[in-house]
Amino acid sequence: MKKFLDNDFLLDSPTAIALYDEVKDLPIVDYHCHVDAKEIYEDKKFSSITEAWLGGDHYKWRAMRNMGVEEKLITGKGNEYARFVAWATIMPSLAGNPLYHFSHLELKRYLGIDTPLNAKTAEEIYKKANLALSELSVRKIIEKANVEVIVTTNDPLDDLKYHKLLKEEGYKVKVLPAFRPDKAVNIEKPDYLDYIKKLSRLTGLPINSIDDLKTALKSRLDFFQANGCKAADHGLDYVPFNLKASYKAKEVFEKALQGTPLTKDEVDGFKTDMLIFFGKQYAKRDIAMEVHFGCVRNANTQMFLALGPDTGFDCVNDQNNVDKLYGLLDELALQSKLPKTLLYSLNSKDNALLISMMGAFNGAPFKGKVQQGSAWWFNDHKMGMEQQIATYCAGAPIATFIGMLTDSRSFLSYARHEYFRRILANYLGNLVEHGEYPESELDSLKQIIRDICHDNAMAYFGY
Amino acid sequence: MKKFLDNDFLLDSPTAIALYDEVKDLPIVDYHCHVDAKEIYEDKKFSSITEAWLGGDHYKWRAMRNMGVEEKLITGKGNEYARFVAWATIMPSLAGNPLYHFSHLELKRYLGIDTPLNAKTAEEIYKKANLALSELSVRKIIEKANVEVIVTTNDPLDDLKYHKLLKEEGYKVKVLPAFRPDKAVNIEKPDYLDYIKKLSRLTGLPINSIDDLKTALKSRLDFFQANGCKAADHGLDYVPFNLKASYKAKEVFEKALQGTPLTKDEVDGFKTDMLIFFGKQYAKRDIAMEVHFGCVRNANTQMFLALGPDTGFDCVNDQNNVDKLYGLLDELALQSKLPKTLLYSLNSKDNALLISMMGAFNGAPFKGKVQQGSAWWFNDHKMGMEQQIATYCAGAPIATFIGMLTDSRSFLSYARHEYFRRILANYLGNLVEHGEYPESELDSLKQIIRDICHDNAMAYFGY
Amino acid sequence: MKKFLDNDFLLDSPTAIALYDEVKDLPIVDYHCHVDAKEIYEDKKFSSITEAWLGGDHYKWRAMRNMGVEEKLITGKGNEYARFVAWATIMPSLAGNPLYHFSHLELKRYLGIDTPLNAKTAEEIYKKANLALSELSVRKIIEKANVEVIVTTNDPLDDLKYHKLLKEEGYKVKVLPAFRPDKAVNIEKPDYLDYIKKLSRLTGLPINSIDDLKTALKSRLDFFQANGCKAADHGLDYVPFNLKASYKAKEVFEKALQGTPLTKDEVDGFKTDMLIFFGKQYAKRDIAMEVHFGCVRNANTQMFLALGPDTGFDCVNDQNNVDKLYGLLDELALQSKLPKTLLYSLNSKDNALLISMMGAFNGAPFKGKVQQGSAWWFNDHKMGMEQQIATYCAGAPIATFIGMLTDSRSFLSYARHEYFRRILANYLGNLVEHGEYPESELDSLKQIIRDICHDNAMAYFGY
Repeated sequence: MKKFLDNDFLLDSPTAIALYDEVKDLPIVDYHCHVDAKEIYEDKKFSSITEAWLGGDHYKWRAMRNMGVEEKLITGKGNEYARFVAWATIMPSLAGNPLYHFSHLELKRYLGIDTPLNAKTAEEIYKKANLALSELSVRKIIEKANVEVIVTTNDPLDDLKYHKLLKEEGYKVKVLPAFRPDKAVNIEKPDYLDYIKKLSRLTGLPINSIDDLKTALKSRLDFFQANGCKAADHGLDYVPFNLKASYKAKEVFEKALQGTPLTKDEVDGFKTDMLIFFGKQYAKRDIAMEVHFGCVRNANTQMFLALGPDTGFDCVNDQNNVDKLYGLLDELALQSKLPKTLLYSLNSKDNALLISMMGAFNGAPFKGKVQQGSAWWFNDHKMGMEQQIATYCAGAPIATFIGMLTDSRSFLSYARHEYFRRILANYLGNLVEHGEYPESELDSLKQIIRDICHDNAMAYFGY
Repeated sequence: MKKFLDNDFLLDSPTAIALYDEVKDLPIVDYHCHVDAKEIYEDKKFSSITEAWLGGDHYKWRAMRNMGVEEKLITGKGNEYARFVAWATIMPSLAGNPLYHFSHLELKRYLGIDTPLNAKTAEEIYKKANLALSELSVRKIIEKANVEVIVTTNDPLDDLKYHKLLKEEGYKVKVLPAFRPDKAVNIEKPDYLDYIKKLSRLTGLPINSIDDLKTALKSRLDFFQANGCKAADHGLDYVPFNLKASYKAKEVFEKALQGTPLTKDEVDGFKTDMLIFFGKQYAKRDIAMEVHFGCVRNANTQMFLALGPDTGFDCVNDQNNVDKLYGLLDELALQSKLPKTLLYSLNSKDNALLISMMGAFNGAPFKGKVQQGSAWWFNDHKMGMEQQIATYCAGAPIATFIGMLTDSRSFLSYARHEYFRRILANYLGNLVEHGEYPESELDSLKQIIRDICHDNAMAYFGY
Repeated sequence: MKKFLDNDFLLDSPTAIALYDEVKDLPIVDYHCHVDAKEIYEDKKFSSITEAWLGGDHYKWRAMRNMGVEEKLITGKGNEYARFVAWATIMPSLAGNPLYHFSHLELKRYLGIDTPLNAKTAEEIYKKANLALSELSVRKIIEKANVEVIVTTNDPLDDLKYHKLLKEEGYKVKVLPAFRPDKAVNIEKPDYLDYIKKLSRLTGLPINSIDDLKTALKSRLDFFQANGCKAADHGLDYVPFNLKASYKAKEVFEKALQGTPLTKDEVDGFKTDMLIFFGKQYAKRDIAMEVHFGCVRNANTQMFLALGPDTGFDCVNDQNNVDKLYGLLDELALQSKLPKTLLYSLNSKDNALLISMMGAFNGAPFKGKVQQGSAWWFNDHKMGMEQQIATYCAGAPIATFIGMLTDSRSFLSYARHEYFRRILANYLGNLVEHGEYPESELDSLKQIIRDICHDNAMAYFGY
């Protein structure tokens, strides 16, 4: 029996251990996350483990709701200790769940705590964790985690004040923005025109047509690039590609400006035009395009009205997106303007499909220009990672993969990179142990795992 | 090499064995099945193993058809011995199939037979099995299997005569009805108006409007509840949720009463209205709602015409139901009338999706109010159970799970609970063995597995 | 640690080894592939390993593109050595990929080379491989691989000249044609009328109506059958079944003859009528019908324009086909004209669905008349085969399975049969080792694996 969370955690063989050894000290390139640059700049400290863990982590909230915990102990304010105890109490219920591993890895790696968390140990751990946190800060955690690059996700309207300040200060970790223009694309949303007005005001450019809109967005892209932006991100509930309808995008935008309601085809057509516009801009500017899709957002309207978005009420979608997704890539490729593209579906049934799609759009001089991103959100667990890695290996050279990201709102989440590295090392190590890859080629495998855990992401984004 | 079906069958480690030991003697709560209460009340005896095994088990029929066995040896009457030999002869072909395990478990646990069944052993086993069956009866099997609760599936028109008689008699096993009103909902079926007439006659209530219909159904719900009903069941080929169309349900029902043909939207709108009506009733009455979907029923028309429904000619559907499913749950939640809900899809691609959906609709004071049901029908095998358990663990606290049911028409199927318990114990045990869950928390894990195998179902349904 | 590609490659247990031993020397029945009968008749020799490996293998091309190799080193002409080195260089990147195993198995079994291929060993292996190839030829490879039957895939217009010559010659390996009439069905394609003209010219029959078309195709079926045809193949992007629209097929064909553009419903209706026509013909003629679907062909238009079809730019589709697929089978069954049918989906999410579908359409006197084909194309790897085998076992008697085919354009691909046999032996062996199948029934299991690897296919097609 292996000890819980021991040195060889998730590593089943000597080769796996050797491969993990190769990457465990590599710096972390967290190329997509949702932390706040301000908190890095101001070197925020956490008042308590409750703030650090339950302040915004909707994964934990969701688990607590599944266990029937009262909402005031989940998203309520105050009650720091009681909320922590509520969380601690459900911990043992999470056998086989990534939260069980992530939480204990965070306790061990950042707070020096090695005791399993449960109702009985809650008090002791609460004290120890708070004591440890009082000596930590965002920057100390980042240093401890050996992070080299942090890429935040930012609206085009963001002034990137803290990214600039960090650069001016000469902060040794690269903190770069990613461009996420969903609000400029989601023409069907009630606050769309407000957003356009703000964009116009910020850029000082009038926006009376789709061309004006694009000009304003290009100026924001210029600004983002001047501040180190290497990636853009599009969050799509589904892939709205409709080329024929896109030819009316100019008129659709005018209708929207006049407050005229739009049909679904009009909305999809406008979005298609904008996605093609963005794709071409990214290609020209050497910005990588991330596409996240397959999510039902705010499925529970009652709770959305009470708590707003990103509070744990989303779920996996099952729409068929492949026609539209390859339509988008194909259109960009036809115009020779296909940017580097990372594809993320929340539905793991799409894994093999996305891997097959990368093969249809790749070529010289890029290695893995189009690729499936690592196991996303609801797939971000041991089984999900293993399946994504195995499917990637089966369908494409795994050596192209740019590997793990936290996608997290929490600075303690860097432990997920360790988790991924162990799982990857174990998968590749097993190939050797089982006679499926020659031991004599172990150096190649070591190079591959170093590439996936660090070098590929650095090269892909050009940090 | 492990011996076939030995004490540690499906248990790979000492921890798995310890966990199974914790639950192997727990009573069985069979909260959803299709046995006949009459056969319990009358303590039916089986004339032969052929009757017990091939009298109505369309899983076995299907396997025999796949092997090219003649239909008269499958669903034909008489020929008891020849039919048994036909089944025995194909048994060895079922390597890796749950029928191989279920059949041998049933022989071993209930009939004291430990010999693998095949063409050579058929004669000997036929004699032994029939001898053993001659000393058994439905009630003896139930006792032998240590069953505490049996929940049958009943049409609203059912008089529940035998449920009442069993209660009056003071039978120590709870035999309770579940309410399955599909025939009151399936307005597109040719025999719908006949059904409505019968419902009217039985309740003594005129049914001239949808409100009348609901009144009649409420009176049947009252009746079912008076007889211990704690659960309702809806079998849907797909989820027909269409809220806009549901606003015309009143008119649609009137058209149906007049024999006017209905469009698909009208049918879906009516069904939506009825599902919302039922959901609200269940919430008010604290009845759990089971939703089964994802099935193509009677795919082979020729054989349907020859043999009728439930004879082994159904198959897995691949429709996308998520929008409609969360639409239904969301509408009920918005009205604060979401009942306890169990979601079953016949297509295992929906596993992770359903697990994610439960997280979006759960909260205090329920533990696991909305949850995915255990691996259903075509998924009711080792791989299917393992996948469902692993997916559940990865996406939600497994401690919320109410576990296994037989869904069977046969009294010998209780062995499936043993099968599930072993698979669950093995999965959870492996977590400990592999250092993914602390050995020091083993007591928590023992509590979890006891909960899943017994206590959760008892509490969930409120038996 | 197991040695790479050793004798027990992919075999984890003594029982697996024993089962593999049972089948390793059985002749290969390659019942579906894309090799050219001319190359067999002329006993083609390969100028170099580059020609043999990179001449037409779009799996390898795709992997190279993923790695960013220049197109001229992929599909370019000449440069034999440089192209081989380019391939050798990316080989180590393919950890966990079937190409890694297939390539090394081919080197070992046919060319006597046991060194892992990489940039360093490229030169030495290039020389050795070319030397070995210079002593080989297509027929010698076929003999070495112990092939008994080869079924090529042929257009109805094919004169089958080389099939005839091989038969006249008395070549001991059966080289038979399969009938693939996609071009006669794909009425929406720009070259459709040309094709119809060619068909008319070849058969000497005027084609002025759909009945004429069918008469011409029947004459080609006669011709194919006279030359040993036992199987037909339909490649469908999706399953176009639309029974109602099929009643207009006659008019649709007339419109097409007049060059009138067709709607999607018209196209689907025509195709439905033709699929039913073909199905009935196959049933009458005892020809097995293979249906391949779930593919997005030529997803990358730019590369399609540059390189044409079948060059590595296809990907997995995610359409829902089940309604249409069972619609087709049901219609044929209703007419008592359902032929032997093999179902292949490129999307592995359909595995369990297809297995369930076979159960709904099978019966006496056939064993496995309708069945899912082996893991196809993008699923043709260890994980894909394991999943297909496990899903088959869980849902149907594995003993019905007709097993592996190469589906390949290369004569070196017979090594894939060895790969499959090892994986199958390992899966079945593990059942015994883990106590899930009795050791005492090992002879049955040996019979099953022999059937799957040889006897079933021979009987199914009636070779």
